[in-house]
Amino acid sequence: MPQASIILVRPQMGENIGAAARAMLNFGLKDLRLVAPRDGWPNDRAVDTASGALDHFQPEIFETLQDAVKDLHVLYATTARSRDMVKPVFTPNAAANDTLSRVDQKVGFVFGPERTGLENDDLMLCQNLITIPTNPDFSSLNLGQSVLLIAAALHHAQDTSPPSALSHGDSIPVTQDKLEEFFARLEDELEKGRFFKARDLKPTMIRNIRNIFTRSDLSDQEVKTLHGIISALIGNKTKS
Amino acid sequence: MPQASIILVRPQMGENIGAAARAMLNFGLKDLRLVAPRDGWPNDRAVDTASGALDHFQPEIFETLQDAVKDLHVLYATTARSRDMVKPVFTPNAAANDTLSRVDQKVGFVFGPERTGLENDDLMLCQNLITIPTNPDFSSLNLGQSVLLIAAALHHAQDTSPPSALSHGDSIPVTQDKLEEFFARLEDELEKGRFFKARDLKPTMIRNIRNIFTRSDLSDQEVKTLHGIISALIGNKTKS
Repeated sequence: MPQASIILVRPQMGENIGAAARAMLNFGLKDLRLVAPRDGWPNDRAVDTASGALDHFQPEIFETLQDAVKDLHVLYATTARSRDMVKPVFTPNAAANDTLSRVDQKVGFVFGPERTGLENDDLMLCQNLITIPTNPDFSSLNLGQSVLLIAAALHHAQDTSPPSALSHGDSIPVTQDKLEEFFARLEDELEKGRFFKARDLKPTMIRNIRNIFTRSDLSDQEVKTLHGIISALIGNKTKS
Repeated sequence: MPQASIILVRPQMGENIGAAARAMLNFGLKDLRLVAPRDGWPNDRAVDTASGALDHFQPEIFETLQDAVKDLHVLYATTARSRDMVKPVFTPNAAANDTLSRVDQKVGFVFGPERTGLENDDLMLCQNLITIPTNPDFSSLNLGQSVLLIAAALHHAQDTSPPSALSHGDSIPVTQDKLEEFFARLEDELEKGRFFKARDLKPTMIRNIRNIFTRSDLSDQEVKTLHGIISALIGNKTKS
């Protein structure tokens, strides 16, 4: 998928244009198009809230939405209310996934003015609608926040890094044989310390103890630390 | 899953606390906890940027993170940098999905101060880390934006409504037999209009024409409109 374009139709407040630019660049988007911004362009307030993003790219200015999207293939219009129109309605993540299948197509995300949202004539140009699901009792997403959520969804859909990973910092995970060595030593010392009083429960207790530690995805260094703990506790017992 | 808690550790700017509260309520969260907010509480600037969200709930104030999370079971700490710590690192969506499996557990999302982020002693209390994947060349998410993305991810994970749907407004989808009736009439009129000049291509052309319209998921009203279009075009031909 090529870069998605963000199109702000008749945006009113420079602050929101700047916040949109900042949100875009945070997620790697740089193609911002403004249709008839109320206060013209350039806009000092936009620069302020962009936190430097507008040093990396500048918006293109158009008079009409039609002009702004001439080179694009597919448009997704964000809208808060459901309209009396027959269009597919996506969540941000579903729309982002939909763009993945549009190989070699240029996609655009269209946002309306702060107060009123997009007009029906704007929506007519767009193949798809996006509604961000929010709390029905309090839905006050502003323009910058809406762009942020769409940009994050696009980045998320294209992100091939694992959704979760165990960070070991500088340390490496422990190997199974070192883990086994640790368990053997621990069980040996527990035996000496008469931990397993109920003999028939010993296998269960060993299983439970092992589960505590296997669940922790221990690092090599952490197993060394645990050996040290055993040594220290044995020392205490001997002394006492 | 019960309500997730949002914990802001030593937040500096009231604006960000307000933006966090607004983002939370947008996605149905109401349990906000502040650890040693720099400017105390209440905070007028927070009320300003909360856009009314703080009329719906008030944060609880604590002196330390330890105090703030006493009743919670699992903590996810947001952090920009990877740390020299052995902890699972989640994306926002993966963390949100992870909470779904924690039935009857109270989960908390911990955010650090604006400039410095969480300290290692704060992270020590948290089982999991969250890093929001952003553009490595421009990563300037502020506290309010980070809370927004986590709150949206939690809402998304719990949302059981379909990720995309065809909105028909007040209209109903057309039935297959009415669609077939439309195609039969169209093909009949095209035949009369000598559209199918290359006879051997007729089946292919019919298939292509049908695909244009079946792809559109037509409504009952739209098929009536298309019938009207045929009638009008036939009328033109007759007149001309």
